[in-house]
Amino acid sequence: MEALQAGELTERLRAGLPYDAVLTDPDITAAYANDMASFCEAGVPAVVVMPRTVEHVQHVMRTATELQVPVVPQGARTGLSGAANASDGCIVLSLVRMDRILEIDPVNRIAVVEPGVVNAVLSRAVAEKGLYYPPDPSSWEECTIGGNIGTGSGGLCCVKYGVTAEYVLGLDVVLADGRLMHTGRRTAKGVAGYDLTRLFVGSEGSLGIVVRAVLALKPTPPPQLALVAEFPSTATACTAVCAIMEGGHVPSLLELMDRTTIRAVNDMANMGLPETTEALLLAAFDTADPAADLAALGKLCTVAGATAVVPAEDATESEMLLQARRLSLTALERMGGTTMIDDVAVPRSELGAMLDGVAAIAAKYGLTIGVCAHAGDGNTHPVVCFDSSDPDESRRARESFDEIMELGLRLGGTITGEHGVGVLKKEWLARELGPVGVEMQRAIKSAFDPLGILNPGKLF
Amino acid sequence: MEALQAGELTERLRAGLPYDAVLTDPDITAAYANDMASFCEAGVPAVVVMPRTVEHVQHVMRTATELQVPVVPQGARTGLSGAANASDGCIVLSLVRMDRILEIDPVNRIAVVEPGVVNAVLSRAVAEKGLYYPPDPSSWEECTIGGNIGTGSGGLCCVKYGVTAEYVLGLDVVLADGRLMHTGRRTAKGVAGYDLTRLFVGSEGSLGIVVRAVLALKPTPPPQLALVAEFPSTATACTAVCAIMEGGHVPSLLELMDRTTIRAVNDMANMGLPETTEALLLAAFDTADPAADLAALGKLCTVAGATAVVPAEDATESEMLLQARRLSLTALERMGGTTMIDDVAVPRSELGAMLDGVAAIAAKYGLTIGVCAHAGDGNTHPVVCFDSSDPDESRRARESFDEIMELGLRLGGTITGEHGVGVLKKEWLARELGPVGVEMQRAIKSAFDPLGILNPGKLF
Repeated sequence: MEALQAGELTERLRAGLPYDAVLTDPDITAAYANDMASFCEAGVPAVVVMPRTVEHVQHVMRTATELQVPVVPQGARTGLSGAANASDGCIVLSLVRMDRILEIDPVNRIAVVEPGVVNAVLSRAVAEKGLYYPPDPSSWEECTIGGNIGTGSGGLCCVKYGVTAEYVLGLDVVLADGRLMHTGRRTAKGVAGYDLTRLFVGSEGSLGIVVRAVLALKPTPPPQLALVAEFPSTATACTAVCAIMEGGHVPSLLELMDRTTIRAVNDMANMGLPETTEALLLAAFDTADPAADLAALGKLCTVAGATAVVPAEDATESEMLLQARRLSLTALERMGGTTMIDDVAVPRSELGAMLDGVAAIAAKYGLTIGVCAHAGDGNTHPVVCFDSSDPDESRRARESFDEIMELGLRLGGTITGEHGVGVLKKEWLARELGPVGVEMQRAIKSAFDPLGILNPGKLF
Repeated sequence: MEALQAGELTERLRAGLPYDAVLTDPDITAAYANDMASFCEAGVPAVVVMPRTVEHVQHVMRTATELQVPVVPQGARTGLSGAANASDGCIVLSLVRMDRILEIDPVNRIAVVEPGVVNAVLSRAVAEKGLYYPPDPSSWEECTIGGNIGTGSGGLCCVKYGVTAEYVLGLDVVLADGRLMHTGRRTAKGVAGYDLTRLFVGSEGSLGIVVRAVLALKPTPPPQLALVAEFPSTATACTAVCAIMEGGHVPSLLELMDRTTIRAVNDMANMGLPETTEALLLAAFDTADPAADLAALGKLCTVAGATAVVPAEDATESEMLLQARRLSLTALERMGGTTMIDDVAVPRSELGAMLDGVAAIAAKYGLTIGVCAHAGDGNTHPVVCFDSSDPDESRRARESFDEIMELGLRLGGTITGEHGVGVLKKEWLARELGPVGVEMQRAIKSAFDPLGILNPGKLF
């Protein structure tokens, strides 16, 4: 009976899709079961479809609605919250073959893209025309714009340039029943009706399938120049962060690495970071006179207690410093067998309390937790390292991960700054939103997806 | 019977509000019937309430739900689309007495305010702490933050700093049934669940009552320096706008005034603007070296055909130039007896076509239509001047106003860049959104306001 249904589903899908767009071999479809998050349940997909056109996606959604089969949209599956994990018997809707850049328009400073375009491909293509697409998640060489929109991704640039949401002007969306809806605009401004564009950003594929996006671009800024500042404690580093932001500075990057992270990066890549320091701040400016701006920022670091402030001489040196930061997550992942990456953002004035709290949690549970942070945003990534073959250590890892979110909420923060909710944090979303918030969010979900077929089991 | 109901309504409202917060004198309540838009129907309110606390607002909404009475939220009623117009028998919910600035936080760069805070009051208060709240609608000395959030207001700053929406991080909202909901965050980043904060911005009081807002602030930029460039045609001025934006410039202001507007401003304020020119561009930078940036921009104007480029010598001269622009709407209003201000935004590459089209519409209908525009955003404000005592001229005014919106949509634009939909443009909203878009927007409205009591007859 179940096999018969799967056969019918495949047949119905094939009626409107090219043969090679419907994958049913279980060895292949199994590879589409999950994204990069730990501790997230994942089911077995019935079928994986890889549409190339809007009409293909419409056919998939019409079929899914008729047969009431769940649909899990996927990009590059680099997400960290299980939002792209398959559910049993679902259609995995992979959008990676819809990967065309349809338009880059320097006068209007927009790009029009399909969802499967890789972030780095777009970034390079617009750079050739003197334009800049800021959002730069760590996975930018692999992750897709559609995935970035689904999760509301951030990156290193956010302290100056904001997150993905701020660059999405308009969308074409295929609704649950296969109808096509246009949202937003191609213009710089527009307030015609409710902002459905923004509603879709961060909705993790639970409201509809984004099949086209109008993105805002900025002119290419001057090359950024970076400095590194060494601190004897995380507290002094966080004091510097507050002083920098209170002082009216607008760095293009303001990152923090704790001692665990520094050592992990050195172990992996022999970067020669100063292991005796307790925290590093990495700052950069992409202004007209970055050296002058760095000098002013460096002074604030020194006043806050930095033991050394080392500005890069040029763009190449700057890039090396940033490389150390970019390796942080990978390096921490190599330390323990398994890692869970948290993503708690707090008001930046609470960054010191957050880091102290994480250290206390690590001690309490007897675990290594390295922290790197988009410090200027107050967005921390505590990385819990553990041996997943040890049940007790796994339990402690999960508990410490949760306690970190609880700490973040207590400090006036949010459980997720840029990674999303997915499966991993859905119990916590309810705690953050409260019952009225959850009820209204569910009401919106029901309005767009009355049958509950769009990425079920995520967010709520 | 009707009188009895009105009596019951007043009595029920007074049970949870101070005596002076409930206004029933028809001579007084009549003054709350409408905002500043022309051609918009307005009913007679049953009562005006002026709450001072969140609990007051909750009481009003609970009462309205129980008695199924419509509620029309109002700020300073400076809106231009009739979104704050009363409906017959409604409760006008004026939020102007909830006017406290609760918090200004320089480290986290946020302000927390009640909805009745006047834009200019907030702007000055944050400026004292070295911070900047960019959104600056023309009515900024009177309009309230709650009204700005309701309409999604813009202003002169948007070409560099964006609109109100980009500065709203979190909200407290009283729902139709009186329950309190929190949305968003106090942190720089956050992607926990659907973005309900953004959904409320521009919703014109149709989804709930904003009673508190967390606003993002920026550091105070350097003082801006302006220039004025004179052009022999609107076409050459628009060519300059495109060249400036394509050239990667980021002016803090880029405004256009057509000949009609120039003359109106001179007539009113004797500003000595050059009446022989067909179009003026006004540009400014608030960068580290604005004179150098203006020089580069001025060259692009000259190449595009400007007959004169006059940079201001200092901040005082710059302010005088901006004053001419700020007077434009008032000056045009003084020309005809009555004016209708349109608000069509087009891709900036279509600005020339838009202005040509508006001139053709003015000729076709035999009317004066002056245009000032936030040129860098492609956001035009064609002002239709007419004698409202002349039925035929009034009809022509209304038809030309509509034809301007049609032109904007044809050029890939939107019917409203920053003024909102209200009563004035609700038929046109449906044209812009299309049937699927309207259906989904209505579904959201129903989810938040199942009884349809929140600002009925607006938007849809």
